[in-house]
Amino acid sequence: MADDVPTSHPRAGEPVFDLHLGGKLATVATAEVGTREQLSLAYTPGVAEVCTAIAEDPSLTRHYTWVPNTVAIVTDGTAVLGLGDIGPSAAMPVMEGKAVLFKQFGGVDGVPICLDTTDTEEIIETVARMAPSFGGINLEDISAPRCFEIEDRLKERLDIPVFHDDQHGTAVVTLAALTNALRLTGRTPESTRVVISGAGAAGVAIAKILLAAGVKDMVVTDRKGVVCSERTDLTPVKRELAAITADVNGRSGTLADAFAGADVYIGVSGGTIPEEIVATMADDAIIFAMANPTPEVHPDVAHRHARIVATGRSDFPNQINNVLAFPGIFRGAFDANATAITENMKVAAATALAELVGDDLREDMVIPTPFDPRVGPAVAAAVAAAARRDGVARA
Amino acid sequence: MADDVPTSHPRAGEPVFDLHLGGKLATVATAEVGTREQLSLAYTPGVAEVCTAIAEDPSLTRHYTWVPNTVAIVTDGTAVLGLGDIGPSAAMPVMEGKAVLFKQFGGVDGVPICLDTTDTEEIIETVARMAPSFGGINLEDISAPRCFEIEDRLKERLDIPVFHDDQHGTAVVTLAALTNALRLTGRTPESTRVVISGAGAAGVAIAKILLAAGVKDMVVTDRKGVVCSERTDLTPVKRELAAITADVNGRSGTLADAFAGADVYIGVSGGTIPEEIVATMADDAIIFAMANPTPEVHPDVAHRHARIVATGRSDFPNQINNVLAFPGIFRGAFDANATAITENMKVAAATALAELVGDDLREDMVIPTPFDPRVGPAVAAAVAAAARRDGVARA
Repeated sequence: MADDVPTSHPRAGEPVFDLHLGGKLATVATAEVGTREQLSLAYTPGVAEVCTAIAEDPSLTRHYTWVPNTVAIVTDGTAVLGLGDIGPSAAMPVMEGKAVLFKQFGGVDGVPICLDTTDTEEIIETVARMAPSFGGINLEDISAPRCFEIEDRLKERLDIPVFHDDQHGTAVVTLAALTNALRLTGRTPESTRVVISGAGAAGVAIAKILLAAGVKDMVVTDRKGVVCSERTDLTPVKRELAAITADVNGRSGTLADAFAGADVYIGVSGGTIPEEIVATMADDAIIFAMANPTPEVHPDVAHRHARIVATGRSDFPNQINNVLAFPGIFRGAFDANATAITENMKVAAATALAELVGDDLREDMVIPTPFDPRVGPAVAAAVAAAARRDGVARA
Repeated sequence: MADDVPTSHPRAGEPVFDLHLGGKLATVATAEVGTREQLSLAYTPGVAEVCTAIAEDPSLTRHYTWVPNTVAIVTDGTAVLGLGDIGPSAAMPVMEGKAVLFKQFGGVDGVPICLDTTDTEEIIETVARMAPSFGGINLEDISAPRCFEIEDRLKERLDIPVFHDDQHGTAVVTLAALTNALRLTGRTPESTRVVISGAGAAGVAIAKILLAAGVKDMVVTDRKGVVCSERTDLTPVKRELAAITADVNGRSGTLADAFAGADVYIGVSGGTIPEEIVATMADDAIIFAMANPTPEVHPDVAHRHARIVATGRSDFPNQINNVLAFPGIFRGAFDANATAITENMKVAAATALAELVGDDLREDMVIPTPFDPRVGPAVAAAVAAAARRDGVARA
């Protein structure tokens, strides 16, 4: 039966494979069917009454199914961690891990859906057709620029939350940490000059949320330097990005040009920034080098030139980790029975995260740790309240 | 948070709605992420090793994900119980119930997928694209004749078990009960004349499995009488059915013609068979009146004219209940890592079920009860062994 998990397996003895044996996720019944009477309620004939009631009043789905607490974690396997396009089957361990985190930190039931297509239209159609099964859609590890169109189109089409975590989860936690870092260094968003390296999903979303938070002077860089309209090689996504970042202040040039005098560096690019370039930043600089597993600037180097340093890694202080955001964001959206996750809901999540640090705020503590038990509930409450303010809540 | 299930709800106080409050299903983590170190194994950076290993050797999916123990329970909501086309949202309580039964009786993780399309091609495409997420596909409550093509095409296309339970689950349990009923009444399949009312999913599948079991003289009836080639109103599915049933022995005519002298009646039609027709059956007749909640012949009436009576209901003896079959069939297929569920695997399941009754065999005990704890393991073992004999097992 189900318990006959083999005691030996191909990679036995390697801790990460031992932990993954049999997968990381299971389903469990929340209604008992141990007696004939229970069976006749949970299944035929009793269940027919519930089906009929929902057919007459679809809003009853919220009370009598698992749908309103369930999120599909959807990927096509094209941008998995730093591994790139490894396909849907190889992406599954990440999606299961995400489901585990959704449950542990938000009480949300996550269902991994790994799709055997990378076609934008097919992904949109497939997710839309599955949508009655879920209370929300978390898009994951889908490569840019398809991820932007897929998210936009599904948001238009569906009346449940659709959220691309690689964009918005990262952006929310970054904004939270940056809010506290600016506070510590006596800056306002409006007076702060920001450089973001990486014009993919995370870079675009971070740029947008920082603009919404009041940052006025920002550039995004890619391998060829500052993303600005002077360049003739920009994709449509980068052209839009240039218009709302570098172009606003007429900035252009190389990575080195961008760094000279900058207050904040946010790395979501991979690659390495040479120390001589980092050294040109302003006093009391802030460096978030978030590439995993190798930060764009090693924290030891960053600390020689910056007052506040954050990474994506758990073995350094100030870990920018999406798990601080997505479980509480969906928990809050579900608690409010929200039809969407709005910009204000994301900003509310970031504000709640930043405020949780409270009196503990210091250079090596600008963001809570993932295991702070206050995080999920605080983010959820802030997000649900913002949903109600924005008029997207049905509860 | 997740625990704030409302204490009042729209249908509070009605037992079936109280039981359904919050749904019947949840996910649960089978790997702990309570510490920083566990988190770094179950999620980044550790999980990347598992992803990389699967990308290099997809067969490792079997060891290190939940996929090989997971079945998608897929419906379009067009033929839900006896309720008909109530749509995907209203179908969810049945699919959740099915998932609960899969877990309880087979240790299988079931994921309900209710589709917002009734188009044959779209259903096939959608399920095929989701397939890397699951170890098997259980089609459920999809109306005939689309269910036949959807199952056939998905079986061709996918290398995991695809099983339409309304057809094959019903057929397996019917064959098991009939095997014991024939034994009790001293009949062989070859010498038995069978009438099936209902030419939908269940009727077609029962006819086919009984033919495979050796029954030679069988008719299927619909509202217009015996399904036979004389008729000019047959759908393609019914034409095929006529060729392998009534036509073989040149039978035709009305429902009454079919019943006169018949040994066995199997009802999967709904509607009512008049007592005067039932009364024309042979001595020691066998009546399986399986429509739910109202059997085609009430057991009290049936017992006046038949020696052995079975229904689909739990409040009469001899319940023909699919739950006796589908959990063990998928458990066995998964234990064997089977690429398909073959005809022999279904027959093996029926034989195992029939044999379980053993020395308890009597008129009111031709099939085990759903709560007999031997059922799931016995069916699974028989199915896995048949998979190995058929060469579709990878383990």
